[in-house]
Amino acid sequence: MTDRKKTTIVLLSGDYDKVMAAYIIANGAAAYDHEVTIFHTFWGLNALRKDENIQVEKGFLEKMFAKMMPRGVDKMGISKMNFAGIGPKLIKSVMKKHNALPLPQLIEMAQEQDVKLIACTMTMDLLGLQKEELLDNIEYAGVAAYLAEAEDGNVNLFI
Amino acid sequence: MTDRKKTTIVLLSGDYDKVMAAYIIANGAAAYDHEVTIFHTFWGLNALRKDENIQVEKGFLEKMFAKMMPRGVDKMGISKMNFAGIGPKLIKSVMKKHNALPLPQLIEMAQEQDVKLIACTMTMDLLGLQKEELLDNIEYAGVAAYLAEAEDGNVNLFI
Amino acid sequence: MTDRKKTTIVLLSGDYDKVMAAYIIANGAAAYDHEVTIFHTFWGLNALRKDENIQVEKGFLEKMFAKMMPRGVDKMGISKMNFAGIGPKLIKSVMKKHNALPLPQLIEMAQEQDVKLIACTMTMDLLGLQKEELLDNIEYAGVAAYLAEAEDGNVNLFI
Repeated sequence: MTDRKKTTIVLLSGDYDKVMAAYIIANGAAAYDHEVTIFHTFWGLNALRKDENIQVEKGFLEKMFAKMMPRGVDKMGISKMNFAGIGPKLIKSVMKKHNALPLPQLIEMAQEQDVKLIACTMTMDLLGLQKEELLDNIEYAGVAAYLAEAEDGNVNLFI
Repeated sequence: MTDRKKTTIVLLSGDYDKVMAAYIIANGAAAYDHEVTIFHTFWGLNALRKDENIQVEKGFLEKMFAKMMPRGVDKMGISKMNFAGIGPKLIKSVMKKHNALPLPQLIEMAQEQDVKLIACTMTMDLLGLQKEELLDNIEYAGVAAYLAEAEDGNVNLFI
Repeated sequence: MTDRKKTTIVLLSGDYDKVMAAYIIANGAAAYDHEVTIFHTFWGLNALRKDENIQVEKGFLEKMFAKMMPRGVDKMGISKMNFAGIGPKLIKSVMKKHNALPLPQLIEMAQEQDVKLIACTMTMDLLGLQKEELLDNIEYAGVAAYLAEAEDGNVNLFI
């Protein structure tokens, strides 16, 4: 164990605003020299999806889920006032105007700062997501790995 | 006070996926020998409802809320892609196929592992829920009891 | 640094029930002599909006967001069973009947107990909110200020 402080985030949500909040906190904590882990589960896994269409073998149920879920962060809705997709567009326009980093860059920055991005293998199974469909340089683990980090964490959040 | 690590979860959500995440983390932490408490408030109380219809005296407003809320976890929706109930059915089918424990068994396992299940008395009042309608062997308390646990907690989450 | 325990809450949600939970936990922790901080971001900022209409200069995009968002907590919906506004009215009636404090009083009580209310300046920019529109006696800061509090926090929640 090191003396560095630790931040862990369970990211279950797949809403653009919440994913953005998770990555802004993670990047901030990494800049403060925390060891940072984001454990992606359920809809949070969509933040790790590549945006191209990857051909993989899936069962019927898994195919249905995969079809219904957004591929990559640019296709996510927001948690409030989504208005059939107008909300996310509006947020992105305003972010551009204010020079705020859009989500794909926030994720890239997290990877550059060695934030540990973990995909929850149990929910990957449930939602029929396969490693080929997710970003490179991420880790795969279950709830035990999350708890091992979180029990020494200074800031533990569920988003 | 013991030397065991502590995990506390405030469960406000009544979405199948979020309740599942709460109980998977709770069971994992209990297996790691943490003292674990789940404090159920608002819609999270529905996780503790018995699935049969219990006859109790209620005022008109309380009756309305009780009618609108799902009785037990099997009737819960999911937080994303609920599609009028197709989402939860789909998740349950996939869980069965992958031999994942469904929610009622996760709750049973938590009780067997001595996870402390607390029902928030203030929101029980607001939503018109009575002790007869909730599972046996749970505790009843308010925010003070939650804070007493959480202030020594290693992992504190709000779900 | 003092020896007092610390509670920090990131409040991203603008749902009546979740904001209420945040302020009940904050007031409870303050009563327990914790140092308490609520960091309001995204829709959580609406909890800090004055309920009168304040005239400020805004760009077009910011004006759209500001219009779509509720002014003050009394106009918020709830996270489940909102039913076009019936849910919040129902909750407020039941709260009155049970002598529970409504949200505006919970916020006032938090201010009286010296709970530190912070508005996230980055999301204020995104949503086009200006200081004139928010309550008096609050602070303005970014994610760094939040992390400085949270890394020594005993109870850190994301709501």
